[in-house]
Amino acid sequence: MLKQVYQFDEGNADMKDLLGGKGANLAEMTRLGLPVPPGFTITTEACMSFLNTTKELSDELKKEIDEHLSLLEKKTNKSFEGDKDLLLVSVRSGAKFSMPGMMDTILNLGLNDETVEQLASLTEDEAFAYDCYRRLLQMFGNVVFGIDMQYFENYLTFYKQKHGVKLDSDLTGDDLKSIVTEFKRIILEIKKKPFPQSAKEQLHLAIEAVFHSWNNERAHIYRELNRIPDDIGTAVNIQLMVFGNSGDTSGTGVAFTRNPATGENKLFGEYLINAQGEDVVAGIRTPEPIEKLKNDLPAVYEEFTRLAHLLEQHYRDMQDIEFTVEKGKLYILQTRNGKRTAQASVKIAVDLVEEGLIQEEDALMTLNPDMISHLLHPEFSKVALEKAVKVSDVGLPASPGSAVGKICFDAATAKEWAAQGEKVILMRQETSPEDIEGMVASEAIVTSRGGMTSHAAVVARGMGTCCVAGCSELEIDEFLKRVVYPGGQLNEGDVISVDGSNGVIYLGELEVEVTETSHYFDTVMAWAKKHARLDVRMNAETVSDIKTGLYFGADGIGLIRTEHMFFGAERLIQMRRFILSNSYIEREKALKVILDYQMDDFKEIFETLNDLPGVIRLLDPPLHEFMPTKEEDIVLLAQEMNVSKNEIERRLKELHEVNPMLGHRGCRLGMTYPELYIMQSEAIIRSAIEMKRETGLDVTPEIMIPLVGTTKELSELKEKIELYLDALMEEEDINVFYRIGTMIELPRACLIANQLAKTADFFSFGTNDLTQMTFGFSRDDAAKYINEYVSKGVLPVDPFQTIDKDGVGELIKTAVEKGRSTTPTIKIGVCGELGGDPTSIEFFDDINLDYVSCSPYRIPIAYIAAAQSTIRRASNNE
Amino acid sequence: MLKQVYQFDEGNADMKDLLGGKGANLAEMTRLGLPVPPGFTITTEACMSFLNTTKELSDELKKEIDEHLSLLEKKTNKSFEGDKDLLLVSVRSGAKFSMPGMMDTILNLGLNDETVEQLASLTEDEAFAYDCYRRLLQMFGNVVFGIDMQYFENYLTFYKQKHGVKLDSDLTGDDLKSIVTEFKRIILEIKKKPFPQSAKEQLHLAIEAVFHSWNNERAHIYRELNRIPDDIGTAVNIQLMVFGNSGDTSGTGVAFTRNPATGENKLFGEYLINAQGEDVVAGIRTPEPIEKLKNDLPAVYEEFTRLAHLLEQHYRDMQDIEFTVEKGKLYILQTRNGKRTAQASVKIAVDLVEEGLIQEEDALMTLNPDMISHLLHPEFSKVALEKAVKVSDVGLPASPGSAVGKICFDAATAKEWAAQGEKVILMRQETSPEDIEGMVASEAIVTSRGGMTSHAAVVARGMGTCCVAGCSELEIDEFLKRVVYPGGQLNEGDVISVDGSNGVIYLGELEVEVTETSHYFDTVMAWAKKHARLDVRMNAETVSDIKTGLYFGADGIGLIRTEHMFFGAERLIQMRRFILSNSYIEREKALKVILDYQMDDFKEIFETLNDLPGVIRLLDPPLHEFMPTKEEDIVLLAQEMNVSKNEIERRLKELHEVNPMLGHRGCRLGMTYPELYIMQSEAIIRSAIEMKRETGLDVTPEIMIPLVGTTKELSELKEKIELYLDALMEEEDINVFYRIGTMIELPRACLIANQLAKTADFFSFGTNDLTQMTFGFSRDDAAKYINEYVSKGVLPVDPFQTIDKDGVGELIKTAVEKGRSTTPTIKIGVCGELGGDPTSIEFFDDINLDYVSCSPYRIPIAYIAAAQSTIRRASNNE
Repeated sequence: MLKQVYQFDEGNADMKDLLGGKGANLAEMTRLGLPVPPGFTITTEACMSFLNTTKELSDELKKEIDEHLSLLEKKTNKSFEGDKDLLLVSVRSGAKFSMPGMMDTILNLGLNDETVEQLASLTEDEAFAYDCYRRLLQMFGNVVFGIDMQYFENYLTFYKQKHGVKLDSDLTGDDLKSIVTEFKRIILEIKKKPFPQSAKEQLHLAIEAVFHSWNNERAHIYRELNRIPDDIGTAVNIQLMVFGNSGDTSGTGVAFTRNPATGENKLFGEYLINAQGEDVVAGIRTPEPIEKLKNDLPAVYEEFTRLAHLLEQHYRDMQDIEFTVEKGKLYILQTRNGKRTAQASVKIAVDLVEEGLIQEEDALMTLNPDMISHLLHPEFSKVALEKAVKVSDVGLPASPGSAVGKICFDAATAKEWAAQGEKVILMRQETSPEDIEGMVASEAIVTSRGGMTSHAAVVARGMGTCCVAGCSELEIDEFLKRVVYPGGQLNEGDVISVDGSNGVIYLGELEVEVTETSHYFDTVMAWAKKHARLDVRMNAETVSDIKTGLYFGADGIGLIRTEHMFFGAERLIQMRRFILSNSYIEREKALKVILDYQMDDFKEIFETLNDLPGVIRLLDPPLHEFMPTKEEDIVLLAQEMNVSKNEIERRLKELHEVNPMLGHRGCRLGMTYPELYIMQSEAIIRSAIEMKRETGLDVTPEIMIPLVGTTKELSELKEKIELYLDALMEEEDINVFYRIGTMIELPRACLIANQLAKTADFFSFGTNDLTQMTFGFSRDDAAKYINEYVSKGVLPVDPFQTIDKDGVGELIKTAVEKGRSTTPTIKIGVCGELGGDPTSIEFFDDINLDYVSCSPYRIPIAYIAAAQSTIRRASNNE
Repeated sequence: MLKQVYQFDEGNADMKDLLGGKGANLAEMTRLGLPVPPGFTITTEACMSFLNTTKELSDELKKEIDEHLSLLEKKTNKSFEGDKDLLLVSVRSGAKFSMPGMMDTILNLGLNDETVEQLASLTEDEAFAYDCYRRLLQMFGNVVFGIDMQYFENYLTFYKQKHGVKLDSDLTGDDLKSIVTEFKRIILEIKKKPFPQSAKEQLHLAIEAVFHSWNNERAHIYRELNRIPDDIGTAVNIQLMVFGNSGDTSGTGVAFTRNPATGENKLFGEYLINAQGEDVVAGIRTPEPIEKLKNDLPAVYEEFTRLAHLLEQHYRDMQDIEFTVEKGKLYILQTRNGKRTAQASVKIAVDLVEEGLIQEEDALMTLNPDMISHLLHPEFSKVALEKAVKVSDVGLPASPGSAVGKICFDAATAKEWAAQGEKVILMRQETSPEDIEGMVASEAIVTSRGGMTSHAAVVARGMGTCCVAGCSELEIDEFLKRVVYPGGQLNEGDVISVDGSNGVIYLGELEVEVTETSHYFDTVMAWAKKHARLDVRMNAETVSDIKTGLYFGADGIGLIRTEHMFFGAERLIQMRRFILSNSYIEREKALKVILDYQMDDFKEIFETLNDLPGVIRLLDPPLHEFMPTKEEDIVLLAQEMNVSKNEIERRLKELHEVNPMLGHRGCRLGMTYPELYIMQSEAIIRSAIEMKRETGLDVTPEIMIPLVGTTKELSELKEKIELYLDALMEEEDINVFYRIGTMIELPRACLIANQLAKTADFFSFGTNDLTQMTFGFSRDDAAKYINEYVSKGVLPVDPFQTIDKDGVGELIKTAVEKGRSTTPTIKIGVCGELGGDPTSIEFFDDINLDYVSCSPYRIPIAYIAAAQSTIRRASNNE
């Protein structure tokens, strides 16, 4: 029979699939000889088998658990249900991937009305024993019986107020006995069942609850957000309880081996004396910085420092370590690679390489490409800061970044406003897993309670969202939706500016500006560029955007959208003249004027690009996009053009389309008005000629024909343009090399790519249109139901943000295979928005595209993703 | 070296690829011992080699032609360039497929200023000799030198008027000498080159001209229309001239072995005494019916009758035979399978089978599926005919059918009006190949000159277009755009009604009604149904349409569009109530009312269908289609609904979509409003239950979910509907079997068909939407540029009318393969418009679909096409 339970000393770090991340870690730490409280792990397979069958613990599993319990009793010389020294355990979930705050934990399991007395007499501390019991009741009631935590919290608050008690630790044994009685009553009343007195029954129910929690909604959302599969399940870790709340030589804490916000190589963490672990993470009491432990418990501090270093060396990455001290004895409860800010991630990566601990490739793999963009986020401008009015500066800089937005006080509102396009800042006394969706939707998170490792801080750093935590001088009233600060009061909807790098909050909206990148960022980017097989180009047409892209190391431009160049006032008039005129000569005149403008545009672009390649897409949108729609604008245009208003309306009617996305656009325009495409091509080549003459620079323009669906569209337009350009170059007696390729953005283009590759000098995938056509989704209209689909799990991701491998991806793959079957060397890139998405970039790398192209600010992301993909493929091939 | 020239007696009927249809036929007839004037054929390969290389006759080819000329001289004991008895030849094109009127012919080749005198003295008929010469000059000038025929015709008319000559045959030798002189002057003046006096030079130029004519525009259009490939080329036939214009015992004619209009088994044709072949076909003189030949030349008539029968027996199909009589000797110039009307085609097919000449399969292969629909065309109603005013009843019933339309007098106008959706009737004195496009666009063709085998008549019958020819009492003025008839005058744009079955033309618009089908039609349809592997279903939802489809033998319904059922006044109100209400209860109430209506609809459909299957598509169009758009209608609706106008406008704005085709429709509606789909499914099953209870009939509804793009859309909706229906049937304590399948109409659905097939009980391809998405063409908008694309050859066919095999077809094939890879037995059909197109049906048969579905009137077409496909595949597999 399949082994479903492992003692910690039976496993190791490689068994994450089976034991989960936490279980494998506990096993590994045990193997390393660290002071880990003993225990055992129930496998993820047991979980999935449980969830896929009866959803009850099988007799076999129960038997195996019993055997391991006996082993644990022997190891600790304590007894779970007997009369020896009392064995209490914690029950914790632990999936393969870290899911902080998502899964549930129960401490002190094994206590009941009798053993609590035993614990009291063993520890000679009745208050401690009953505090343990009330915690068990509370967690068990919540996690296993699904009773809202508020019932317990409210009663505790009520009791303390009634008896004038300020801190939990001031409660006496008698106080806690009353509270325990009340908690048992709450359970009985709401659940209609008493709290189970049998330790084994507690354990079985707790294990079942952990298993079930794999499928709770929060877990689903987290997995969706982090693209973790639904079918891997969670392990359950049952571990000897050690008590950080056993008095003044006890305590509990969390520490990072390096600073997770800045990356500084210095132990960083917090602890609470006389407390259990949940107290630190939940942010209910504000903990002390780890350095102070040196004063409180110097031996423990020294030992912990040693072990922390040992763990970092062993795991070769910054560690996030949970520890507990029980009456002076240090226990390590957990270690994992620590979450960190983007800033910290690049510094740590560079430092670890410089320390010789890891290679560049390993360092690159520690980075989260999506987060890299946070390094490029704007900061408040110095000028703005000089005049700024502070709301508060006592908060903790929990997650860096600068954000401006309207405040709101609950997750639902945050989500709703964000969906309407508002920038929102979520303010809570403290956050909890229920707030996840609201946190995702917010620009920044501000809390009045909790420390650097509180829920808000950890989650915000994980998402790269700006966060100020524990800003204790704010009185946040979530019910009345207002916050009182030393200088006044803010209401829901008021605008503030938040600086997560120093924890300061300002009134109103501050101006922002772009930051300079750091040495660490530059180093990491140089590595990425070195290791990435894919080239990364930018989508850009303004000089300032192109400069930004070049600054980030772009290998050229993947998409220059020429239509943007037609919207200047004078050009627009000429374009409208072209559209409205019935005379060929008039139209030619209009084009001539546009040609001169376009030449200026292209020369500027070529000058900025220097010798890098640039793909120029010929006019794509339907003509009606250049026409006015409002009555008054039409009247104005009629006057300007000296034609009747009726005439313009007639033409507008003629141009109107029921489904413009599927209408007369792209190369279909070029087929109807070849003179338009020829004019653009002429402007491109004339600019290149002038560049060559003036500066000697040889540019090789790549002219791209959009929306091709048939071979003849491409071949006829290409031939027409070539004939014209060849004559032009002969006339000018100068030669400029250029390419003519096509955008692949229709399903049909993918299917006939073998034919298109005979004519096209290059391919570039337009993933936006291709996704629209493949799904039959109009981006303009579909946002509503796509969001609905993603949140309901009908679609795993928004296919406009991350490649739909089964559909769109399949077509792209087909096109690449067919195209290369005709012309093995044809250059193929992607210029649609997916070109800047890490998951999509991995896919494009896998199918051997030559480059991706994305907006300038996403170039660093694309490089990291591309480098990671190359490294991953190399390691898969080993 | 490759043999490029064949004497007629070297070939046979199987060599069509190489010798063309005409050449192979001449060879076959020669082989059969028929009196064919001797000659030789230059192969189609020689043509393509000529067109693909220098476009000049190679020395090798010239040498081979010379050798065959010498052979011909020997056979005929005449001399081409020497001084013996004069050898004159005809030069005719002849491609593999018959292309009447499309390619060019030159007669009397070999004559020059000297030999014309020789011919005059040989034949002792100067007028005859010079008439031959002027014909040569005219044809050569036109075909080889590209001089407009008008120059020659005008001069001839002018000369005759000036000299008071009425008929060509009244011209004297001197007259014709003058005319010849003038014709040579015309050639010299326009072409700046004299007419070549060397017979060989004439021959070489003529052959080149025939080769070139393969690529002229008319030939291209004809090939496009008839889907003949561009790369097969034409052969050239060089044949001894025989002279039908050698006096009163000479003549020329065309005859069919059976009546091509009715199918009657009786020789049918026309001839002209003392004329050359072109005179009959061109419709310049109105010829005599073939029976009269019995009086004019009884021996020739008897011989011709014998040979005609022999040819029909040999070719086992009705023959279209060209013959010439030279001084009492009969020559057969050409035979081919005769074009025929739909009516004739079914009668001939049935007769030939009954005569034991062919099998059912052969008979089916003689039919043109597209034409079959003409048999079902409406006729003028008896009531309307009683009151009708005749324009003329002297015309020939050249091609049957009844048509109503506006008259116009040139092809360009006909085409333009038709493109605007007008029904047009083209009136010409006579038609010519230049008119083809206008003829295609017209409902009927009327000419004032020419007979049953004139250009207009032949082409119209070929296209199945109604035609009245040779209506001599009409004075058609193409320049002034009017026609004078015995009772008055009609101008361009006036409406007439034309009956091609009896040659009568009526004033104004006559009411039409459907005809009963004939015994022949029924027989042919029974054969088709017997031989077709594919089932043929109908797209229908009204009882009258369903009855029509059943009458034509439909195997069930492939598409019931339920949205049509929502447009009745009361239903529309409820639908609008559903759309406008914010209250779930209100919406439920509205649906309840619609449910009752839908039940009536479905019961009626089930009753009519009896035990045949029917696919019911759940609601597909976006909700805004059910809403009013006009100001006044909105105001009215606001009153009816008792809501504010603003409220309706707000909702309209909410429902508005930029690209409705890619918007919130199909199953996306079902995902947002599952209650809609559940209501429809309930109506379907409740109707089936009532049917079962009332009549004992077991119907198996096939419920189809439209626009599925993801597996979850299908699985979630299917599960919801099944849960509901199962509960419903349990409550009703009765069981009805039903299927739930999906429409495959998005590219993505094709790509994930293997996943969809796990859930779907059946697939049905929606080719309209699939074509829209694959090409990125909106049907609403694209007509303009699709027509442009088809006429320019960018697209070979309109992909909404005939399957685009490379793109859409490839996706369909993929979907079938993927779907069957999961569920080999899954039933797959097609319900889009391509389901009624013969070429597409052949494709659907090839990829092994189970059925096609089309509009009721196309069912016979679909059956014939399906049967032909089955027969073709069987013969390919032999």
